Amino acid sequence: MKVIGHQTHHTIADFDSIFNYLHNYFTTKQPGLHLFPELFLTGYPLQDLCLQKEFILKYEQFINKINEWSESLGDRFPNTCLLLGGLHYDLSASQMAERIENCIYALELGKKLKKVYVKKLLPNYDIFDEKKYFAMGTECGVWQYQGLNIALMICEDMWYSEQYHLDPALDLKNQGIEFDLVINLSASPFHIRKEDARLERSKIISKELGAPFFYINRVGGEDEILFDGRSLVMDGEDLVFKAKIFEAQVFEIDLSKFSKKEASKEELLNKNRQKSSWESLFLPHLDNHQLRKLNDKECEVLCDALEFGLTEYMSKSGFKKVVIALSGGIDSALVLALATQALGESNVEAIYMQGQYSSPISYELSREMCDHLGVALKIMPIKFLHSTIRTQYKQNFGEELHGVSDENIQSRLRGTLLYARSNQTGAMVINTSNKSEISVGYSTQYGDSVGAISLLGDLYKTEVYALCRYLNRVSPGIIPVGIIDRPPTAELREGQRDDQSLPPYEIMDTILECFLSSSYSRDEIISLGFSSNYVDQILKLFSISEFKRFQFCPIIKLKSKGYGFGHRLPITKSTSIYK
Amino acid sequence: MKVIGHQTHHTIADFDSIFNYLHNYFTTKQPGLHLFPELFLTGYPLQDLCLQKEFILKYEQFINKINEWSESLGDRFPNTCLLLGGLHYDLSASQMAERIENCIYALELGKKLKKVYVKKLLPNYDIFDEKKYFAMGTECGVWQYQGLNIALMICEDMWYSEQYHLDPALDLKNQGIEFDLVINLSASPFHIRKEDARLERSKIISKELGAPFFYINRVGGEDEILFDGRSLVMDGEDLVFKAKIFEAQVFEIDLSKFSKKEASKEELLNKNRQKSSWESLFLPHLDNHQLRKLNDKECEVLCDALEFGLTEYMSKSGFKKVVIALSGGIDSALVLALATQALGESNVEAIYMQGQYSSPISYELSREMCDHLGVALKIMPIKFLHSTIRTQYKQNFGEELHGVSDENIQSRLRGTLLYARSNQTGAMVINTSNKSEISVGYSTQYGDSVGAISLLGDLYKTEVYALCRYLNRVSPGIIPVGIIDRPPTAELREGQRDDQSLPPYEIMDTILECFLSSSYSRDEIISLGFSSNYVDQILKLFSISEFKRFQFCPIIKLKSKGYGFGHRLPITKSTSIYK
Repeated sequence: MKVIGHQTHHTIADFDSIFNYLHNYFTTKQPGLHLFPELFLTGYPLQDLCLQKEFILKYEQFINKINEWSESLGDRFPNTCLLLGGLHYDLSASQMAERIENCIYALELGKKLKKVYVKKLLPNYDIFDEKKYFAMGTECGVWQYQGLNIALMICEDMWYSEQYHLDPALDLKNQGIEFDLVINLSASPFHIRKEDARLERSKIISKELGAPFFYINRVGGEDEILFDGRSLVMDGEDLVFKAKIFEAQVFEIDLSKFSKKEASKEELLNKNRQKSSWESLFLPHLDNHQLRKLNDKECEVLCDALEFGLTEYMSKSGFKKVVIALSGGIDSALVLALATQALGESNVEAIYMQGQYSSPISYELSREMCDHLGVALKIMPIKFLHSTIRTQYKQNFGEELHGVSDENIQSRLRGTLLYARSNQTGAMVINTSNKSEISVGYSTQYGDSVGAISLLGDLYKTEVYALCRYLNRVSPGIIPVGIIDRPPTAELREGQRDDQSLPPYEIMDTILECFLSSSYSRDEIISLGFSSNYVDQILKLFSISEFKRFQFCPIIKLKSKGYGFGHRLPITKSTSIYK
Repeated sequence: MKVIGHQTHHTIADFDSIFNYLHNYFTTKQPGLHLFPELFLTGYPLQDLCLQKEFILKYEQFINKINEWSESLGDRFPNTCLLLGGLHYDLSASQMAERIENCIYALELGKKLKKVYVKKLLPNYDIFDEKKYFAMGTECGVWQYQGLNIALMICEDMWYSEQYHLDPALDLKNQGIEFDLVINLSASPFHIRKEDARLERSKIISKELGAPFFYINRVGGEDEILFDGRSLVMDGEDLVFKAKIFEAQVFEIDLSKFSKKEASKEELLNKNRQKSSWESLFLPHLDNHQLRKLNDKECEVLCDALEFGLTEYMSKSGFKKVVIALSGGIDSALVLALATQALGESNVEAIYMQGQYSSPISYELSREMCDHLGVALKIMPIKFLHSTIRTQYKQNFGEELHGVSDENIQSRLRGTLLYARSNQTGAMVINTSNKSEISVGYSTQYGDSVGAISLLGDLYKTEVYALCRYLNRVSPGIIPVGIIDRPPTAELREGQRDDQSLPPYEIMDTILECFLSSSYSRDEIISLGFSSNYVDQILKLFSISEFKRFQFCPIIKLKSKGYGFGHRLPITKSTSIYK
């Protein structure tokens, strides 16, 4: 029997496009077992959308349409069965959702959809809220098709939960069935270094259940969350197939190629529980007491992820072009490079907005970069506007603007002008903040923190450098060396440099990584060799800047622990927590 | 035996202040059973804070300190027992949280804290994420103290969940025990019209369990969520006591005043399940196919709530003064009136920022209002800055700014100047948007949508009018009649009026209420008598403005269904959902 994996890519709730995919694919005979991702029929994550009556009505109509289409095919598609991820609703008399299941439907072409499995392990940590919406399945995923014993799982089911004491893979093992095939339909969000764990666990499951493991993942960028695809087939220790990253793909594997194996007697699932639990995802990424360095392969994947996430957000929001505020610094340079690679130079515009404290080199480096890339660079000075506000402020309030008030005006004027250009041309503004700045609130709210989506918000400053150096190795000259070499500065006052206000980034990034993982206390971080002054300064800045993160734009998620939807802290709380 | 209710008010994680409360209260003999709210020992909601190692360490130290203090009291406080809401952690070897319980501790003074009950019904809808953090209790809340049978519940336990099939009150009933007392320790977020349901359910529980029902709620404003207090004692049908709203209070009730009652045989809990489920909270508030009108009592409570929420957010963020952009319109007028009532006129500053299209009446009405209230009104015109940007834009980009680009510049300049003043004086900016505008995106991002906290973001425009009229009845002249009578306008272009872009607010607000409750589909709303043009226009505007709500400030929650943390929708999704 052939197994056909459909690594698909659809917009959330785009029922027409999902229907058309099925309708157009099954025009000629396609015998075999066709696998589609988790929640293929709806998209994921839906959040409150799955509770809205209008969504439920449209989804139920769509399900009826699939059933009618399938029945209309009669017996023209023998031996063709689809396993599709979707929702199952129990509705009240007034068509409100009483119970929602995240399930697998089997569709034998010619017949109707039939629910064959309900997800058991509902992730509810970090960005996940599945227990908010879905009811837990209680039955083991055992399904027979054409004389084969098939084990079914949905995404998280392949992992183990310490908190809920659930191990669906082990439950399957304990059924005492000789499985011919193990299938996992997934919608698994991307983060760097996740695939290693995924491959490892796939091997364990395949060996322990004694059957090839088919893992089908969706592709898509949903605001901050990316789905990377990379569907795979594992046979024991052997990676038989791996699909593309961030790209739809259909692949076919004949089951006859697998020889029958004995299920392992080693109790691998039990033995490897700890590193298969989600809690293990939130350990800090350290190497020798320092933030672990990105290697070239990781840099490549991160650039791919950011370019994919950007194009996804834009196409789904109806944008074709972007506008980027270039400062002559490293963050906006990396954003410009990534956007140009993703969209082509004709869809990118840079604006340089010199202020009173901008040094000539900032403009020269911006110019050099845009010339190299072929990107249009526009100029819009803020000096005169800034001095006008100063004068007007003095006239109207009878005092001089001082310090931070004066600094922030420049940043907010830039935000205003950048958005004027965006409104005028229909180009989307990309935010240019990085994770280090966001962590300590080193930005001006409604100023340099504006934007529709953040590319660098899950990358520490030292990782922004690493990515720039990587890009320069792959595409020499893309980031001017002068930008990499100059000390970071916001240029909002005379001679300003980041290191006047903040610890060195190498130190700060490591401290932040230890703290954000939730698994290091203040004293433990200090015991790694960091000064208590630095640690206390950073934790304090982190604590008091929550109000800025609250109003921040979506940040493309690259790490197991980042800001955005998976980060939830009260803005107001006792100030004594972090000291 | 005396029962003493402590309706307390502490900042989240302010362990010193919580300890001092206990330490200072129990200086002289206070025999009796002392009841404290849910999570009194930590504050609520904690969100990810309860997973942070630094928080856990400090909390465990605090628990040890309480135990040491209690043991040091020896036998000086006979017959004194405290029931305290708190967290119980199971920690791993590395002091990470493996399991967290939301529980009740009994503290007999002289002894250590003893866990006596774990919350069973963990709310996980809307703003609640308790299943994300807490493990569910499985034991019934039966506790003996001084020969009394006492039923224990924590907050949501008094309700019923359709989704989880849990009814902790009925479980208690089914124990077949004659209870002398029923206790519920709560941290129950405020919303309008919630108290009626709370009182109704209290009666049912008291009657069905045949014992007086003590309900102890906390007081506090935690960003967008308010805790209203209003602790109560219900004996059958009789409301024996009700504590103050939005204010800490200690009250004492002698158990001897209650006569022994038979538990009801009527199965009231079963009969009233449907209206005791959380799903019932999300029905739209309609009256004769229109948004239900606010009566005077409700207006009073809403004004109290907003003033309390504002002072809470400010004191916890370290602000003493506010600055408000007055436009001469109704929203900023209501914000100014509420802020002045809450903080006193000397802590409020208004700024009027006239633009090219501002009519003289806008300034006159602002002036009239500030003179009446005794609030300082400052002037900061944007005309010249606006025209400078127009000129500069043309010089630099070779074209005129048009339409929305030009309109938004005015709004963003106002945001910039308002924040310049805020930065300079340390006064907090209050946002002035209302729920109708936020729903359809009728605002400029980083412009009129700026602010640290939103007071009106959970009030529809028609409710803003109702509150203004109510305030004018209570404090005649506080809102100038001219502001109430003039047609709403953003004054960003010549002759602009809201009704050029939007349906009339009476219609829009009702349609939004039907839709946001999730329980009406497009066609059902139309069947109430609304034109499909209006319905489709509003649903479309709602759908495409999610990106603005994503970056919005915290909105003080006044309704069962509002924006903010309890509202979670993808920004990007198929545009075909709402048509």
